[in-house]
Amino acid sequence: MYYGEYLKLSQLLSSQSPRSAEIGSPVHDETLFIIVHQAYELWFKQILHELDSIVGLFNADQLSQADLGLVLSRLDRIIKIQKILIDQIEILETMTPMDFLEFRDLLSPASGFQSVQFKLIENKLGLLPESRVKIGNQDYKHHLKPADQAAIKTAEAEKSLFTLVEKWLERTPFLNIEGFHFWESYREAVNKMLAADVERIKSHPTMSPQGISGSLEQYKRIESSYNSLFDAGAYDKLIASGERRLSQKATRAALFILLYRDEPVLQLPHTFLRQLVDIDHNLVSWRNRHALMVFRMIGRKIGTGASSGHEYLKNTVERHYIFQDLTNLSSFIIARSALPKLPTDLRSQLGFYYTDE
Amino acid sequence: MYYGEYLKLSQLLSSQSPRSAEIGSPVHDETLFIIVHQAYELWFKQILHELDSIVGLFNADQLSQADLGLVLSRLDRIIKIQKILIDQIEILETMTPMDFLEFRDLLSPASGFQSVQFKLIENKLGLLPESRVKIGNQDYKHHLKPADQAAIKTAEAEKSLFTLVEKWLERTPFLNIEGFHFWESYREAVNKMLAADVERIKSHPTMSPQGISGSLEQYKRIESSYNSLFDAGAYDKLIASGERRLSQKATRAALFILLYRDEPVLQLPHTFLRQLVDIDHNLVSWRNRHALMVFRMIGRKIGTGASSGHEYLKNTVERHYIFQDLTNLSSFIIARSALPKLPTDLRSQLGFYYTDE
Amino acid sequence: MYYGEYLKLSQLLSSQSPRSAEIGSPVHDETLFIIVHQAYELWFKQILHELDSIVGLFNADQLSQADLGLVLSRLDRIIKIQKILIDQIEILETMTPMDFLEFRDLLSPASGFQSVQFKLIENKLGLLPESRVKIGNQDYKHHLKPADQAAIKTAEAEKSLFTLVEKWLERTPFLNIEGFHFWESYREAVNKMLAADVERIKSHPTMSPQGISGSLEQYKRIESSYNSLFDAGAYDKLIASGERRLSQKATRAALFILLYRDEPVLQLPHTFLRQLVDIDHNLVSWRNRHALMVFRMIGRKIGTGASSGHEYLKNTVERHYIFQDLTNLSSFIIARSALPKLPTDLRSQLGFYYTDE
Amino acid sequence: MYYGEYLKLSQLLSSQSPRSAEIGSPVHDETLFIIVHQAYELWFKQILHELDSIVGLFNADQLSQADLGLVLSRLDRIIKIQKILIDQIEILETMTPMDFLEFRDLLSPASGFQSVQFKLIENKLGLLPESRVKIGNQDYKHHLKPADQAAIKTAEAEKSLFTLVEKWLERTPFLNIEGFHFWESYREAVNKMLAADVERIKSHPTMSPQGISGSLEQYKRIESSYNSLFDAGAYDKLIASGERRLSQKATRAALFILLYRDEPVLQLPHTFLRQLVDIDHNLVSWRNRHALMVFRMIGRKIGTGASSGHEYLKNTVERHYIFQDLTNLSSFIIARSALPKLPTDLRSQLGFYYTDE
Repeated sequence: MYYGEYLKLSQLLSSQSPRSAEIGSPVHDETLFIIVHQAYELWFKQILHELDSIVGLFNADQLSQADLGLVLSRLDRIIKIQKILIDQIEILETMTPMDFLEFRDLLSPASGFQSVQFKLIENKLGLLPESRVKIGNQDYKHHLKPADQAAIKTAEAEKSLFTLVEKWLERTPFLNIEGFHFWESYREAVNKMLAADVERIKSHPTMSPQGISGSLEQYKRIESSYNSLFDAGAYDKLIASGERRLSQKATRAALFILLYRDEPVLQLPHTFLRQLVDIDHNLVSWRNRHALMVFRMIGRKIGTGASSGHEYLKNTVERHYIFQDLTNLSSFIIARSALPKLPTDLRSQLGFYYTDE
Repeated sequence: MYYGEYLKLSQLLSSQSPRSAEIGSPVHDETLFIIVHQAYELWFKQILHELDSIVGLFNADQLSQADLGLVLSRLDRIIKIQKILIDQIEILETMTPMDFLEFRDLLSPASGFQSVQFKLIENKLGLLPESRVKIGNQDYKHHLKPADQAAIKTAEAEKSLFTLVEKWLERTPFLNIEGFHFWESYREAVNKMLAADVERIKSHPTMSPQGISGSLEQYKRIESSYNSLFDAGAYDKLIASGERRLSQKATRAALFILLYRDEPVLQLPHTFLRQLVDIDHNLVSWRNRHALMVFRMIGRKIGTGASSGHEYLKNTVERHYIFQDLTNLSSFIIARSALPKLPTDLRSQLGFYYTDE
Repeated sequence: MYYGEYLKLSQLLSSQSPRSAEIGSPVHDETLFIIVHQAYELWFKQILHELDSIVGLFNADQLSQADLGLVLSRLDRIIKIQKILIDQIEILETMTPMDFLEFRDLLSPASGFQSVQFKLIENKLGLLPESRVKIGNQDYKHHLKPADQAAIKTAEAEKSLFTLVEKWLERTPFLNIEGFHFWESYREAVNKMLAADVERIKSHPTMSPQGISGSLEQYKRIESSYNSLFDAGAYDKLIASGERRLSQKATRAALFILLYRDEPVLQLPHTFLRQLVDIDHNLVSWRNRHALMVFRMIGRKIGTGASSGHEYLKNTVERHYIFQDLTNLSSFIIARSALPKLPTDLRSQLGFYYTDE
Repeated sequence: MYYGEYLKLSQLLSSQSPRSAEIGSPVHDETLFIIVHQAYELWFKQILHELDSIVGLFNADQLSQADLGLVLSRLDRIIKIQKILIDQIEILETMTPMDFLEFRDLLSPASGFQSVQFKLIENKLGLLPESRVKIGNQDYKHHLKPADQAAIKTAEAEKSLFTLVEKWLERTPFLNIEGFHFWESYREAVNKMLAADVERIKSHPTMSPQGISGSLEQYKRIESSYNSLFDAGAYDKLIASGERRLSQKATRAALFILLYRDEPVLQLPHTFLRQLVDIDHNLVSWRNRHALMVFRMIGRKIGTGASSGHEYLKNTVERHYIFQDLTNLSSFIIARSALPKLPTDLRSQLGFYYTDE
């Protein structure tokens, strides 16, 4: 074993071929451009390695708490990698637009949206093909080579993490507990919270009449969204209109976990849901930073591929959310002290003590 | 001199009075809520200290290169503080929504948008009162106490950094150089670059007809925006419609600095323009993170004040840009090698050598 | 409720009195110097707020898993604050040494080591008075005012987190399991691992004879340190010589938790131990960065107080470790696959499943 | 042009061959271990690309201010890459020691110190072969393959950045200015500053007699170090003993730049010197974090190569400094107001104004 051989350095470090050098007028900064993108692809490979293993664990019949611990540590790794992906943009920004323009035309029509691994990451997380922003009115796969299209179609056909998590949530135990009318008590608590807000709005000392009616409008929407959690028909309409994606049953399970996160058996599931939201938000941050960087490089000009450049990237920021339904639950959290007390036998079922025998 | 007295610690560390404790049911996390906001206000004071000194330097008749060096180091300090302001949000997010809801109602109708110092920072940078997002259909000053309103009105009446930078750019020397037809050569270079892009679009191998016509549309807008730089009438219309704010003369000076940034005498001015854009973008990042954090805490519910909460904060992200005109210049940068050569005597006027005598 | 009043801003923002202004020759950067230190003190107050609550929870007769969850979230908060404390140094470094020297003499003999809150943090975590680096051959309390000395003496007399964690570890259940000869199997596994390393050293292809004998020496020390875990007399000697602080029983419990971290009931305890080590390391990073910053400001000159400046700060880096004994356990971790299997009934005692009924 | 082909992804993404998979018992985390190291090597290649270009610019007869601007932007890029290198360690730390031990033995005797690119970076910056910490009493090249040894020997024989900077500093103009007795005035200012400190020590209100004599000792060393700047013989002795490396002439030039950093023509040179120190400190931070990470993984055990592991890495932290002589100058900075005024004609020679004609 030798360091350079173990890491296949001769192969790795000969993978940089600046186009500008090939045509005889080398541009110093093209090396940076290549290496930054290669560093991204290495990390994408690592993220896929983790995602595949996580999807595998969820595909099993049963996910033990020990396995969930493993899932958490691998998602945590993905989150840490995402932070590096975001921070790395700053390195690319040390290249000036003037230097980029020196070799930009040589790259056409290659483009960053042709990164197969990045598309796979999105697909495996659960981004739906129909939710994707089109590129020049065409499906995102249109601009890829057949082999790459095939790889992506395979991933599209597989169960995504989103789907598996939905199933996992739906089979959560503890939700229908005899003698514990959780949802009734909880609805009461939410109604009280919302009513207090509405009262506060109506009697606001400095708000204008329009301000007040606007805020009351806002609360009608919250209430209606909230009521759909208990009304299968209303929920189905939201699903049909695309406002919701996660099933009603799974959403209620997620809400239960968020509310009773302190119960020992729910601590890991809660951390897990939070990680999914973190990964989503990190993707948003990455897209925002990426769009900004592109704007600094080329302004409103098109990308080297067929996309509209900055405009396209900005659109993906809001449209490519995956776990939005989980994020949206924050409207329905209530104060800890307003939380319906769990029945004693359920609590003890959920708890354990780490103390002297 | 004694450490604690120098820093007035008895005063500083007795400034935390949780409301929940005052009413007899202390919530552990309210202390965090207070201290995070106080840390923000301390840093805001520091930013104002720097901004005031910078505005003072620009208000002087003449800004020497040494003074510009000072301006750069103080803007750099502001930028570093901004990064801490953004990162600090993560500390506040260790508070759960359930814990926040425990004392949230006690704060009403106080609200973060009542931070006078933050409004002053925006005003001194150059945010116009008419550009601000309204709160419940009312001016942002409406929800403040008279003394605070007065302080803000004073700042609104003063020359902002934006205005002073505009004047400074307008009096840039070197712009009308006898015998050097810079703008003509430059226009030619830009036209060539845009024409090449248009050609590339028309002959794109995988783009659909709609994609192509969309992209060509995009280029018409770029060209029209670009032509306004040389057409006073067209430019005035953009000013009138609110699409532009920076004067044509100042914009052209900024563009010249961006293009000839490597010339010794323009290195500091270039860094300066970049810092202004960085400060703008850091404000955007801060607003995005802030809006996200608020969503995690209260979802779509209103804020403790009269604002719509997350919705209001999201709106400020895009609307409260200040140096957008500088950012937008990136569409008109050309490759370094396409840059018109400066006449020798101008170059030597701009340059100096740090070598052996 | 009004934002400025809730946060006591008039009090907070009037706590900055630069000495240079008081004597009539204001130095611009002294404001920064004051505000940075005040931001530190605000965060120190927050850390103390969390530490006091954690110590309170550990002082109780029994620490439930739910309480442990609370401890974890508060330690996580401290860790996030520590990161800000480290990053903030960069803001102070925007002040040049030349500007600092402009007002440095006015501060004498006040000094950063007079920060009572920082000393309290160290004491409450568990730093022993006798372990502290002396300042000019004197106890660290010598340079404080009587009231501050008293506050610190009180903290020194209280049970620290170190002591409470030691007790908590000592009462860990599961350690003496009938029919499971854990330590025997584990010793065997460690011996095998160390023996393999020794073999590897002896047959190393490129190492010199001196290199080999040096490495073998190193392994003798590891083995002797390791054996002390099973030999009360040897362990006591290490305690007496100051090489160890944590009791043998607590150390063994910590080791068990590190090894079986994946078992559901040990996941939180493991995270907890890791957080203690993280806090220690963050303190080390902070001290390193602080010492470096001071060197950049004043070089090898003394501090404004009585300390030797950079030299003093460097010494505290290695001497003020608190949870070193936990860090040191990493020498005795073995491969996951070499871990003795837990008996089935113990596993099921430690585990639970989050699955369908 | 196609994204995947431009970046040679098939080559890049087939460069990961976990040994554990090859021997038929794949360990999930070995992929991470490989990819992290490959990301490092990619960045090392980029750093070398920048270093080579910088060394090339300094090797030229004359370095124009425009070239110096280029050097600054490339050093800035290296600094930003270094930050990523440091932060990346956190990703590797998501691997547990237990998982690492699962495949560690398969790597022996490969080792991280066999990274040729990292050695080249150190050599090109200016680390001297004789300053390097030995590995098992042997030269660091001993454990490398002949081709790698040759590459390193070539770099050792080239002029390093240290050497070139030294020459560049030595030919700084402005140092011997007729009629301006800079060094005399400056020595006076330094002596005054040191004398004031000594006075402050002697009359310190709370310091013990030993503390006082220790501090006075410290000042004798500072003064003697300082006096050597003006005494060729004394300076030569410091060079001979290894306490200094940078020539007296270059050191004085660097000091002049540090002191008059605000003069327009010295702003870039000053930033340059600061960057060199930053790069040095980032290497120190990287080494510290690296050593800590290794300790967490294997404790006091040896590395997979022949090094003593953590111990070896800790030793390189303090021994592998390169621009220490520049860092050390901070002891001799004086307050801005104590700085000898430059003669008018020299100031105007150093300055220029960016104002109206």
